[in-house]
Amino acid sequence: MRTTTGWQSLDPAGNTLTRVTIERRDLRPDDIAVRIDYCGVCHSDLHRIHGMLGEKNLVPGHEATGVVVAVGQAVTGFAVGERVAIGTIIDSCGACAMCQAGQENYCYHRATTTYGGTDRVDGTVTKGAYSREYVLRATFAFHLPDGLDPAAAAPLMCAGASVWEPLRAAGIGPGSRVAVAGLGGLGHLAVKLAAALGAEVTVLSRSADKEADARELGASDLLVTTDDTQVAAARGRFDLILDVIPAEHDLSPLIAMLDLDGTLCVLGNPLLTGPRLLELATGRKKLTSSGTAGLRQTADMLEFCAAHGITADVETLPSSEVETALNRLAGGDVRYRLVLDMSDLDT
Amino acid sequence: MRTTTGWQSLDPAGNTLTRVTIERRDLRPDDIAVRIDYCGVCHSDLHRIHGMLGEKNLVPGHEATGVVVAVGQAVTGFAVGERVAIGTIIDSCGACAMCQAGQENYCYHRATTTYGGTDRVDGTVTKGAYSREYVLRATFAFHLPDGLDPAAAAPLMCAGASVWEPLRAAGIGPGSRVAVAGLGGLGHLAVKLAAALGAEVTVLSRSADKEADARELGASDLLVTTDDTQVAAARGRFDLILDVIPAEHDLSPLIAMLDLDGTLCVLGNPLLTGPRLLELATGRKKLTSSGTAGLRQTADMLEFCAAHGITADVETLPSSEVETALNRLAGGDVRYRLVLDMSDLDT
Ligand SMILES: [Zn+2]
Ligand SMILES: [Zn+2]
Ligand SMILES: [Zn+2]
Ligand SMILES: [Zn+2]
Repeated sequence: MRTTTGWQSLDPAGNTLTRVTIERRDLRPDDIAVRIDYCGVCHSDLHRIHGMLGEKNLVPGHEATGVVVAVGQAVTGFAVGERVAIGTIIDSCGACAMCQAGQENYCYHRATTTYGGTDRVDGTVTKGAYSREYVLRATFAFHLPDGLDPAAAAPLMCAGASVWEPLRAAGIGPGSRVAVAGLGGLGHLAVKLAAALGAEVTVLSRSADKEADARELGASDLLVTTDDTQVAAARGRFDLILDVIPAEHDLSPLIAMLDLDGTLCVLGNPLLTGPRLLELATGRKKLTSSGTAGLRQTADMLEFCAAHGITADVETLPSSEVETALNRLAGGDVRYRLVLDMSDLDT
Repeated sequence: MRTTTGWQSLDPAGNTLTRVTIERRDLRPDDIAVRIDYCGVCHSDLHRIHGMLGEKNLVPGHEATGVVVAVGQAVTGFAVGERVAIGTIIDSCGACAMCQAGQENYCYHRATTTYGGTDRVDGTVTKGAYSREYVLRATFAFHLPDGLDPAAAAPLMCAGASVWEPLRAAGIGPGSRVAVAGLGGLGHLAVKLAAALGAEVTVLSRSADKEADARELGASDLLVTTDDTQVAAARGRFDLILDVIPAEHDLSPLIAMLDLDGTLCVLGNPLLTGPRLLELATGRKKLTSSGTAGLRQTADMLEFCAAHGITADVETLPSSEVETALNRLAGGDVRYRLVLDMSDLDT
């Protein structure tokens, strides 16, 4: 066994995390060990710590960057010292139709999640990247392209991948009219990525005060969703709306803004219920959702981000401030992603 | 004014219709008058008679075929004696984005429905094709292609158009895996059309006793939805499921049968509520619906049906048996469409 240090949740009622010693497995032939330098703080972490799945003693963290520190004897794709990134899944069955299609995220035998999952070989519960070292199958690690700042790139691995795949699935490119509802971790990357893909991007927001920020990120417009006149004038305006609002909200005004055959992709709150079919019928609109990304799409996204100089807008905190980070995320006090610097775990 | 004879509903509590004299407008320059020979009996007729929209004294009927008996002075596309078909809409604004896109069915200023609508010129309530004559703008009438039996072609104008457009929107063709849930008026035409488009078609049914019928219509298989083993084995099997079940039912088993990026199009019951987004997320599935078809698509469908010898499987009744027809439709005793023969209105 290898040992490292990380942050483990104790109490589902709060955001209490304790620094603990973590065991990592000895490297299997196809494993690599990664020194985690940075890990983004994601809404999922918050939900899981708060017992969404009834879990306790969770080590969260699934958007990380770092450096390879050891490689298994059968690994050919990575060498010690190379920069790598780790996302939301670290294994899958490899054989089912979804895995064969490059959609390991939808593996029919459930992809192994980076934390709170069950290792496919030894059955242990996976512990996440709020830690100084991580061990995983090399196949599920990504090369971090040159030029991407490792702290600002970390959120690409969940927030970025989660919006990238639906943008690609919808065929977004020049001429596409994309709206992004909600300007947090996912939303600000959705604006950047959609704009870089050539789309005309509009931010949908409850107030106009984010307009300058929206334009700064690459949006050409901000539409105030509490202004009925603006909403009515936007009927049929968008081909794709990415809804990344993490709270309860009404989907109907968004559906009304879709053009013929347009798609509303709801990512922020998967517990929302769809509308009556009648609302989708007029204009043959589509309602969809998705869950992170497959290996190939994630690698494509990293290459695209490197080519276009895209990373998240982050604020980096020492990992010892993890509780502050989670509380700030819960309170919406983030612009646009908090990232933990894990180097303080060495001392 | 012109006068004709038709069947008007009296009592929203029942299926009571009375033979009445109906006024039709004198022809405007762009109008034609049509002698209605056949009109299909549609679920919408039943819902509307039963007061779905709080209407009384309705003359239903929106899937009709007949012959031109008079043309307005500006009409160039039709001549007296030609065979024509009439569908669910008979006018629209012509100027909005939907009309410009050939989707008059989704006109932002509401298409004028064939019955129970409001005429855009004189403001009168439109009276449907359960009558011997109909007057409409020539633009919204269709040439009935040679070779199509006029009684069996009548249901193409609502049931056929309603399933044709989502099949085309989904790009269905050779290699597509299409399922049809519900084998009534819409369903049996969906099977015929999808099969003729080259798709592999499966009928989803609560029992196996429709298997021979399904194959007869062009399906390659029937899947029993009450058989959990069959349903589980069909996970990820279809690209498109057309759900034309007119009753309450659970969408979840259908969603589970969709492949990656697959689409569930719910046409039979637009009052159903969508599932939690979570159900769509795994496999990035899409939920949609649609409402009949635009002019161009309807004309394309008629040409396609003529080329492939497709009409509805109908049972023709004299129009005096309209109440029997409606009661049989309400009771599910139809295989697969009842059509009223209007010639008895002459006597
Ligand atoms: Zn995440
Ligand atoms: Zn798999
Ligand atoms: Zn109808
Ligand atoms: Zn219009």
